[in-house]
Amino acid sequence: MGIPNLQIACDHSDLPSALADISAVGDVVDILEVGTILMLQAGEEAVKCFRALYPDKKIVADTKCADAGGTVAKNCANAGADWMTCICSATIPTMIAAVKEVEEIQVELYGDWTYEHAQQWLDAGISQAIYHQSRDALLAGETWGEKDLTRVKKLIDMGFNVSVTGGLNVETVKLFAGIDVHTFITGRGITGVPDPKQAALDFKAEINRIWG
Amino acid sequence: MGIPNLQIACDHSDLPSALADISAVGDVVDILEVGTILMLQAGEEAVKCFRALYPDKKIVADTKCADAGGTVAKNCANAGADWMTCICSATIPTMIAAVKEVEEIQVELYGDWTYEHAQQWLDAGISQAIYHQSRDALLAGETWGEKDLTRVKKLIDMGFNVSVTGGLNVETVKLFAGIDVHTFITGRGITGVPDPKQAALDFKAEINRIWG
Repeated sequence: MGIPNLQIACDHSDLPSALADISAVGDVVDILEVGTILMLQAGEEAVKCFRALYPDKKIVADTKCADAGGTVAKNCANAGADWMTCICSATIPTMIAAVKEVEEIQVELYGDWTYEHAQQWLDAGISQAIYHQSRDALLAGETWGEKDLTRVKKLIDMGFNVSVTGGLNVETVKLFAGIDVHTFITGRGITGVPDPKQAALDFKAEINRIWG
Repeated sequence: MGIPNLQIACDHSDLPSALADISAVGDVVDILEVGTILMLQAGEEAVKCFRALYPDKKIVADTKCADAGGTVAKNCANAGADWMTCICSATIPTMIAAVKEVEEIQVELYGDWTYEHAQQWLDAGISQAIYHQSRDALLAGETWGEKDLTRVKKLIDMGFNVSVTGGLNVETVKLFAGIDVHTFITGRGITGVPDPKQAALDFKAEINRIWG
């Protein structure tokens, strides 16, 4: 079992505040994500800025691509992204088109996906899945539970590198002990606290304590 | 039965070429769409430019929003969009959050949605659905058929204003004769031909011939 990565999701509504946050934690985290909100606000400029500031980090463009996978993936790669996300309801041709243009595609799991779909994604050459507790679902009172952990384990058993995200903080990391999580993704668990760098260091320490 | 609208989808990878295309047809079409590809490349700037150039037209931000509906919708409304799209696999809380912030939400139908989902969207206050032939699916050889038209009619019967999109051109409009289509959405059916303004006029004439 490897040591899970830590990924910061920048779901800022403007580029300057996102840059301020990653400048605080970019050296600590493993992966930098241009979140969907930021992509829709600042576009490729956001990916280009992240790449310029952190030439050696993995950068994810969280496009949640649903169609025109080839074009969107090519645009993201051109701007400097290593990985890109597709929404699980994208068609298989969309995913196949996307996977040709970037290093890796991550499928974002929302709504009523099935393991049959998941096998099709694997067959299409997709290596990563993101198990997501929706922000809005969390606000509506839902949270991580045994049902979620079972699904995460099943996806890992199928062969996916699985990232988990949604309402995570340093305290919730231990819920995943014993599970071969690929990456913990957090936004406001790092950027929403008074000392983001310390929060990122605390995340890394807790991950190393459990998986190290 | 009303006369369907004509909507131009700008799925350009850069803002200048999108602006050139809408300047040719903006006075002819009813609705201007900042396509997903363009949103992910140029961000809110694209919506702001469309609004500045066409203060009186309906403008759609095709975000295909899957999460953080409230934030994304508020950002789109602030930039000048009237309508915004949500992907069908977004959770109901995401859709409810989005519908509060813009004039109308359109659900984009991809993958394995059901009429049970559709009823939940109606109950959440969503008035519009977009029946979509995926661009990548079209490239893979799929096309409009009786199965699609039956679904479109069923959604209209349920109470949705239904837009149709994907591989449409002036010749395919008549496939929908007798159906209360709300809007025909086309991108390269207008922008991909030598004379985009003439193509838009031909679309309008054909729509008026059938539904007028």
